Amino acid sequence: MFNTPDASPGDALASAPALSRTAAQTLAVQLAERFAARIRDRLLAPGARLPSVRQCAAQQGLSPSTVVAAYDLLLAQGLVQAQRYRGFFVRERTPLRGTGAGRAAPAPGAESSDRMAAPVNAAALIRGMFHPAGSRPQPGMGAFPPDWMVSTFMQAAVRRVTTGPALADNSLRYGEPLGDGQLRRVLADRLQVLGLPAGPQQIITTVGATHALDIVSRTLLKPGDCVMVEEPGWAVEFARLAAMGMRILPVPRGPAGPDLAVMARYCEEHAPKLFVSVSVLHNPTGYSLSPASAHRVLQLAQQHGFYVVEDDTYGHIAPEHATRMSVLDGLQRTIYVSGFAKILAPNWRVGYLVAPPDWVERLLDTKLLTTLTTPSLLERALAHCIEQGQLRRHAERIRSRLDEARGRSVKLAQAAGCHFVSEPAGLFGWVDTGVDTEALAQRMLDEGYLIAPGSLFHAARAPSTLMRINFATTQDAAFWKVFKRLAAR
Amino acid sequence: MFNTPDASPGDALASAPALSRTAAQTLAVQLAERFAARIRDRLLAPGARLPSVRQCAAQQGLSPSTVVAAYDLLLAQGLVQAQRYRGFFVRERTPLRGTGAGRAAPAPGAESSDRMAAPVNAAALIRGMFHPAGSRPQPGMGAFPPDWMVSTFMQAAVRRVTTGPALADNSLRYGEPLGDGQLRRVLADRLQVLGLPAGPQQIITTVGATHALDIVSRTLLKPGDCVMVEEPGWAVEFARLAAMGMRILPVPRGPAGPDLAVMARYCEEHAPKLFVSVSVLHNPTGYSLSPASAHRVLQLAQQHGFYVVEDDTYGHIAPEHATRMSVLDGLQRTIYVSGFAKILAPNWRVGYLVAPPDWVERLLDTKLLTTLTTPSLLERALAHCIEQGQLRRHAERIRSRLDEARGRSVKLAQAAGCHFVSEPAGLFGWVDTGVDTEALAQRMLDEGYLIAPGSLFHAARAPSTLMRINFATTQDAAFWKVFKRLAAR
Repeated sequence: MFNTPDASPGDALASAPALSRTAAQTLAVQLAERFAARIRDRLLAPGARLPSVRQCAAQQGLSPSTVVAAYDLLLAQGLVQAQRYRGFFVRERTPLRGTGAGRAAPAPGAESSDRMAAPVNAAALIRGMFHPAGSRPQPGMGAFPPDWMVSTFMQAAVRRVTTGPALADNSLRYGEPLGDGQLRRVLADRLQVLGLPAGPQQIITTVGATHALDIVSRTLLKPGDCVMVEEPGWAVEFARLAAMGMRILPVPRGPAGPDLAVMARYCEEHAPKLFVSVSVLHNPTGYSLSPASAHRVLQLAQQHGFYVVEDDTYGHIAPEHATRMSVLDGLQRTIYVSGFAKILAPNWRVGYLVAPPDWVERLLDTKLLTTLTTPSLLERALAHCIEQGQLRRHAERIRSRLDEARGRSVKLAQAAGCHFVSEPAGLFGWVDTGVDTEALAQRMLDEGYLIAPGSLFHAARAPSTLMRINFATTQDAAFWKVFKRLAAR
Repeated sequence: MFNTPDASPGDALASAPALSRTAAQTLAVQLAERFAARIRDRLLAPGARLPSVRQCAAQQGLSPSTVVAAYDLLLAQGLVQAQRYRGFFVRERTPLRGTGAGRAAPAPGAESSDRMAAPVNAAALIRGMFHPAGSRPQPGMGAFPPDWMVSTFMQAAVRRVTTGPALADNSLRYGEPLGDGQLRRVLADRLQVLGLPAGPQQIITTVGATHALDIVSRTLLKPGDCVMVEEPGWAVEFARLAAMGMRILPVPRGPAGPDLAVMARYCEEHAPKLFVSVSVLHNPTGYSLSPASAHRVLQLAQQHGFYVVEDDTYGHIAPEHATRMSVLDGLQRTIYVSGFAKILAPNWRVGYLVAPPDWVERLLDTKLLTTLTTPSLLERALAHCIEQGQLRRHAERIRSRLDEARGRSVKLAQAAGCHFVSEPAGLFGWVDTGVDTEALAQRMLDEGYLIAPGSLFHAARAPSTLMRINFATTQDAAFWKVFKRLAAR
């Protein structure tokens, strides 16, 4: 299969190992198109170097003259530029007017041009999640494979909300601004169990946790504000804050929590407004916050007047008794965010935030300005899944299965020469491969595998030998065989 | 029914005509609570004056001492403040830290304090949409009543996407970034009929048209940019732009289109980046753009380099052969936005935007940063409704019914002393009542009716005798009887 120019971005990764000598297009055109598709989909980021002609010819089994012809086509299309003695590089995208909002404010001590790269990388990683159905498991993906998520109770819950009067109730009015009342009541009960007593009136449903984090940022921050974000961290968070013109202050994340000395220094020097943290099963390291760290972060927040957004996206697969800052704090200076993409239905896009009472109205106004309301049909179906206890049992099954998968993946990764930077836990492993993973990612794509290079998890892009793996999708020896072969080159 | 302090914002309007002498709470407490609920839900905006003690006592059939006691309670709660000789006023909300992003940049020639009022008003109007089920028809609402929207084909379409494998397909993966492929193909066909040839790759689905407008603003604009918006206009648009720190340039909207002389002057003086227009069945006037106006707006856009966002929210009930700027322009400098809240299912929150090819990637990045993807289950169900021709026939029925309702409403409105400012068309009537409609709105609320005062449709809040009525919900003589009685006072 080959990407045509009008292919959807989701198809970008569906690259075939070899170009077709029988296709209507010449090999040079096919090769140029393959590169063009990756450039369009930001799998080859602006500034990235294309392989040398010799290297590419060897990799693809083509003659150097074919590669030269393909590169000339890319040059003619303005997608790459040649630098004498250095090779071919992906051009920065032509700036259109009015894109100022997409420009990042440079973080203190970082070059503006570095910061700019974040959205590009994030878009590539996100798009990677949308790999077409039926393809092999993708080690770079951030979710469980669909076959893990299959359940019987979901069908029954959906039936309850889509029959006759229920369908009309969940469709023909705009719905409650805060979100479906039944889901918020059920969530309030769940939060109570976590030790977070918050009424349904403090809960706002959102279009996934992503929308919740977006609402929080838009409500609490204004362009130019300083925001502390854990590093390594989730690329979309860096990208969003950069696109909103925030100044990102990266805080190193360790096994017990964020580096408190760095946070204290930022507080003195930059008066940050917000700290964004994936406290439990942190992405990509798998670290979970210690109670002592949680306490000290909250002390700092109190002392310096910043707010904390606790992103508990992986809460459903978290160990029992994991520490949440929101619980210690009783939602004074914390806003709790979570969702159901990692446990039930990524495409339902149901997330929520839980806020101090004083903030609820402002956050709700922001929700209204962004989406008015959210679809109560899916929210109500989710409420049924939760209140019957089915989601809890489903999560237990997923956790057991993940434990087994993790055991296998860890052995395979180690056998392939990877070193675990953090104790394996949760969905993701954070490994050192010993080679530049951004370059490796390009070669793996040629074999049809999407991997998540370490550079994606940093606020400022820099070469990295680290890689995030999804334990659910790296149990396959075939992947590690390819990985080992390409990493050795 | 009485609003308790923990009632949801959606309940705010469920006010009873009279307080209960048999309730557990004293009349003063009940009255105070009624005002408190309205203040919380911004149906009484900061700075608004409470009725005088004598007035309120007469309206509510209470003794002046009861009203004094109620006002004292509100004073004690910090919700209102007393000004000597002038009366009681709703307090400005206590500013919390970090709310800078919610602050509006003053528009050229307008006072900052005026501009600030927009979000407050918009929130009130939006919340008004979410009136609890079973209540009487609401003249201020912006949608068709649920009983108008009932259809049989929706159930069948939903069944198709929620059975077994279809449910899994539409749930267990994140889905395509651009949105459900089948819906985009069906929409491309529909756009072709409108004369707007755009491929599925130029269409991005969104969480309602609101999300589409939000994505466009975030992608094309940066804080401080000047944006031309039609006035009168949709409150949420003013509120969003103000919250994002844009400078709003209000363009008077006439029967044929926006005031071109004003636009030309703005272009010379402020170099606006964007013009936001509801070209067909404009909200609140019902005006539809003439071909000549469309052509001249596009000439200005070309000459001065601004983009046009055409919000075609009312497209499904528009007259045949209505003029769209996007069609004339062939999507060069225009972005087309629409959705299905006004014709099928407000709570499904399915909208979309259609953009010039060069803009698609950037707009898609913004979508990803705000919600990742959107629920394909509802998008696919909608695709089924459209491709079977059922939505088209449904829209025809709605149009006929609306024509009849409009006839009745116009007569009743005129009999009640209202003068139509614009030729009645579409869903909304724009009438002059001869009295201050913001004050009238408070009195109407006491009777259980939400109306939409003219001040809500202006970028800068100012007293107005205008009012927007929903033709589908003002066929009721009972409403006009109450209106006439209260407007005469």
